[in-house]
Amino acid sequence: MKPNSKLTVIGFVAVALAFAATVALAQDPLPSWSQGAAKQAIVDFVAKVTKQDSPDFVSPAERIATFDNDGTLWAEQPMYFQLIFALDRVKALAPQHPEWKDQEPFASLLKGDVKGALAGGERAMLEIVMATHAGMTTAEFEQIVKDWIATAKHPRFHRPYTECVYQPMLELLAYLRANGFKTFIVSGGGIEFMRPWTEKAYGIPPEQVVGSSIRTKYQWRDGKPVLMRLPELDFIDDQTGKPVGINSHIGRRPIAAFGNSDGDQQMLEWTQAGGGARLMMLVHHDDAEREWAYGAESKIGTFSDALMAEANKNGWTVISMKNDWKKIFAE
Amino acid sequence: MKPNSKLTVIGFVAVALAFAATVALAQDPLPSWSQGAAKQAIVDFVAKVTKQDSPDFVSPAERIATFDNDGTLWAEQPMYFQLIFALDRVKALAPQHPEWKDQEPFASLLKGDVKGALAGGERAMLEIVMATHAGMTTAEFEQIVKDWIATAKHPRFHRPYTECVYQPMLELLAYLRANGFKTFIVSGGGIEFMRPWTEKAYGIPPEQVVGSSIRTKYQWRDGKPVLMRLPELDFIDDQTGKPVGINSHIGRRPIAAFGNSDGDQQMLEWTQAGGGARLMMLVHHDDAEREWAYGAESKIGTFSDALMAEANKNGWTVISMKNDWKKIFAE
Repeated sequence: MKPNSKLTVIGFVAVALAFAATVALAQDPLPSWSQGAAKQAIVDFVAKVTKQDSPDFVSPAERIATFDNDGTLWAEQPMYFQLIFALDRVKALAPQHPEWKDQEPFASLLKGDVKGALAGGERAMLEIVMATHAGMTTAEFEQIVKDWIATAKHPRFHRPYTECVYQPMLELLAYLRANGFKTFIVSGGGIEFMRPWTEKAYGIPPEQVVGSSIRTKYQWRDGKPVLMRLPELDFIDDQTGKPVGINSHIGRRPIAAFGNSDGDQQMLEWTQAGGGARLMMLVHHDDAEREWAYGAESKIGTFSDALMAEANKNGWTVISMKNDWKKIFAE
Repeated sequence: MKPNSKLTVIGFVAVALAFAATVALAQDPLPSWSQGAAKQAIVDFVAKVTKQDSPDFVSPAERIATFDNDGTLWAEQPMYFQLIFALDRVKALAPQHPEWKDQEPFASLLKGDVKGALAGGERAMLEIVMATHAGMTTAEFEQIVKDWIATAKHPRFHRPYTECVYQPMLELLAYLRANGFKTFIVSGGGIEFMRPWTEKAYGIPPEQVVGSSIRTKYQWRDGKPVLMRLPELDFIDDQTGKPVGINSHIGRRPIAAFGNSDGDQQMLEWTQAGGGARLMMLVHHDDAEREWAYGAESKIGTFSDALMAEANKNGWTVISMKNDWKKIFAE
């Protein structure tokens, strides 16, 4: 072998090694997850249920994964984004509703006293949301949401709300889908508030979004059939409502479920109660620097001590945003 | 060329021609449909929405097709199969319900007077069905349905009900899916009555089944979470309920819809009211010899003169079972 051909071989080997390293990096499907128990739990679970010869093998049709949205897939502070949307709607609609000046929770909202309006808890919040979302057709509401999501900016991060989605969770969604999973949102948020943008933001199509709803009514208007949104609650997809919503919309029990607050406990219980391998995870917001740190004391996204006790008792994995996520938001 | 090689060439050509003919036959995706307006409407529509350069091109994500079940995908005579299931359940449960002897519609049913029990119309029928379907968990109900569907036989055709499905519609479902469509059932029937067998019978998974429902409640029983089926109607997925159910479960407007009775009118209207190419079809039961002939006068699967007038006015295609279908049931 001549010296220059030796050099060629060395050069080739170097290139090959560099290429192999690149491939190895490219092959990590969860690059924003730190090495640790949370990432390991995900990878182990996926291997278990997808390997044909595994005793825990699950057929692709049964690979259902459900995700809470607020605080799990996108941020939820300083308050639920849908509530910010509702506030914007209250302001926009206030001239047509003079009665709101003396009517709680609108009166507080219009005075800028968000805390006072939120005193009624999650159910009251949903009612505010629903009250400001009715009286138009489903198509009109879809357009209102699309317009808002395209223009509104998060007060702290100064970017669209759909860019306040968690990069590690986007990777997790893609990783699960690449492994034959069907991914669903199961959120306390409004089903028709989420559907206009979930496909673009998460790759989750409208028919895989489950959420809270108000009633709609089929009627004719100007020679065309429309669905009118009525100011009546239909379904609250939170707490015990989550397994009910899952059963109604999906009709199969998930084998993996991801949440971040007390509202997700029953979804995780329901998921775990099926036979075979199961993965239950809770995102814990413990990163005040990059995002927020909150838990038991928070009115929004409450992660109570009781939930932490349940997680420990049942072997649910708690994800530390601070330690398990290298990166919070997509850039 | 020697004579024997000439023969070889002729033989080769003959084989090639035979092969080409076989391929041509194999390529007809709707072999049980007679050449005619109905088949042509389907093929033309699919070509229009799937060809990239067509002005009517629809992206795969938006290719939603909805199918009624009773009388559209499977038979519905001498009465809705779910009603036969309910009758069997009434008989099975009667010893535990002595009060049914004096309580309509159970009293009539137990006396074998089905006609008397049906006098209350479709809503009454659904109530009978729901009343006999509550008081157990969703998992228990699923098992009851599976056991019944595996053993019960149709009174005229003496075979399982899942073999009373229409072969031309199975071909249509497969053809649409092969062309990127997502196929859904949108039926007045019970959502949890259909889900245990639709995947096997039609290739339609539970999450793509929309139907009528009773309420369920999440609770703990024997140390496990369950969903109890309550004797309360939740949603009737018929007539104006069909667009509501489509909006709730699918969140997109179908571009194709298939029904067979007055209960499907609003689903077809809703489908047609979207922009672009649309396909609306109604199966007309006009084949007394191979199946049944019924229409405006029938309590079950009513196809009123008003519906026929709507079909004519709106350009909906009416499928004649007698003329458009070479074959009714799969063999």
